[in-house]
Amino acid sequence: MAIKLYGLGMSTCTARTMACLHEKEVEFEFIIVDLFGGENKDAPFLSKNPFGQVPVLQDGDLTLFESRAITSYVTEKYKGQGYDLVRHGNPKEAALVKVWMEVESHRYHPSISPIIYECLVYPAYGRTPNQAVIDASVAKLANVLDVYEARLSSSKYLAGDFYSLADLHHISYTFYLLKTPYADLITSRPHVNAWWEDISSRPASKKVLINMVLGDKKE
Amino acid sequence: MAIKLYGLGMSTCTARTMACLHEKEVEFEFIIVDLFGGENKDAPFLSKNPFGQVPVLQDGDLTLFESRAITSYVTEKYKGQGYDLVRHGNPKEAALVKVWMEVESHRYHPSISPIIYECLVYPAYGRTPNQAVIDASVAKLANVLDVYEARLSSSKYLAGDFYSLADLHHISYTFYLLKTPYADLITSRPHVNAWWEDISSRPASKKVLINMVLGDKKE
Repeated sequence: MAIKLYGLGMSTCTARTMACLHEKEVEFEFIIVDLFGGENKDAPFLSKNPFGQVPVLQDGDLTLFESRAITSYVTEKYKGQGYDLVRHGNPKEAALVKVWMEVESHRYHPSISPIIYECLVYPAYGRTPNQAVIDASVAKLANVLDVYEARLSSSKYLAGDFYSLADLHHISYTFYLLKTPYADLITSRPHVNAWWEDISSRPASKKVLINMVLGDKKE
Repeated sequence: MAIKLYGLGMSTCTARTMACLHEKEVEFEFIIVDLFGGENKDAPFLSKNPFGQVPVLQDGDLTLFESRAITSYVTEKYKGQGYDLVRHGNPKEAALVKVWMEVESHRYHPSISPIIYECLVYPAYGRTPNQAVIDASVAKLANVLDVYEARLSSSKYLAGDFYSLADLHHISYTFYLLKTPYADLITSRPHVNAWWEDISSRPASKKVLINMVLGDKKE
């Protein structure tokens, strides 16, 4: 039975899991969830994810949510195929991948996410952006990216000289950041910018980014 | 060479890693970092963690930061000893452990953390708590705990009928929450409360919680 992925092409977290599935060369059935119609808050979807959010992955009788748990599962289950995103067989490199995955979760994501919501998502719903929230988040993200700039001046990717899940997890939010007035957070830092050009131009990334059109209610 | 853990006994994230090391029966050298004197922002410490936060784990020439990356490393390296926190050898259960670890990271932690800081940490530095922040966080945490209450009515622990890293990651922040005026977020929910009583009374948990005294500048 093929893996089923429930989500929306423009959703950052759906895109994160799809980029991983493409890197691992896993075929899957993509089932669009009508977030705009509230399908994710209805009982059938809530039985898959009680928090009512996409994506959800279904593999036979196993139902998983939380995008970063899904990518971990996919890299583990398909360790024998596609690109090795988690450095199987090298415990030290694998540990560093986890360190920088956690940096994304606990430093990058909490800083970048409010910028995307305030600048791109809320205005689509007619809500005025909260500039104080944006300013505070931009300052936080700048500090995080200063560390990234230093890190990426000594290794090509975050966990070392190899592309990994730690880098991949950054792709979808960074893509939207570049559509806000704060793109220079990335482009003004030479090593961060080169890293971004590299990771966003991988075939698996391009396959996903082409569908990330905010406001497109179909995908 | 023994593992070295740099941290502070009262630090939530240090406690998370210590509880894991105790569960895995790993001996380690604990090195207190003088956060109050700013040691974590000095060059020697920043060379271990560029974000200047505890804990840091050093295992030979490998230096790791981010508490949840450290616990993953410890459970993997010591898979043959102590309590199995990640369900080695059972991919489905292991995947559910990861799902609920991500729930802690992305739903529980962002809601509970501001309550602890506003109610317990900032006042120790003479700063008045921001009640609007507290109220918003309490409302968010209540929603998360409603899902936990339902989940824990059908399984004894978050990932299933087995204690796991997903539960362990909750211990240190929840311990402090019970010292705020918002303890009833836990105690008013019978299944959540029973879960808390269970996970906090494990020998490995008790060893760590006894050192979690906010305002104690020594440990």
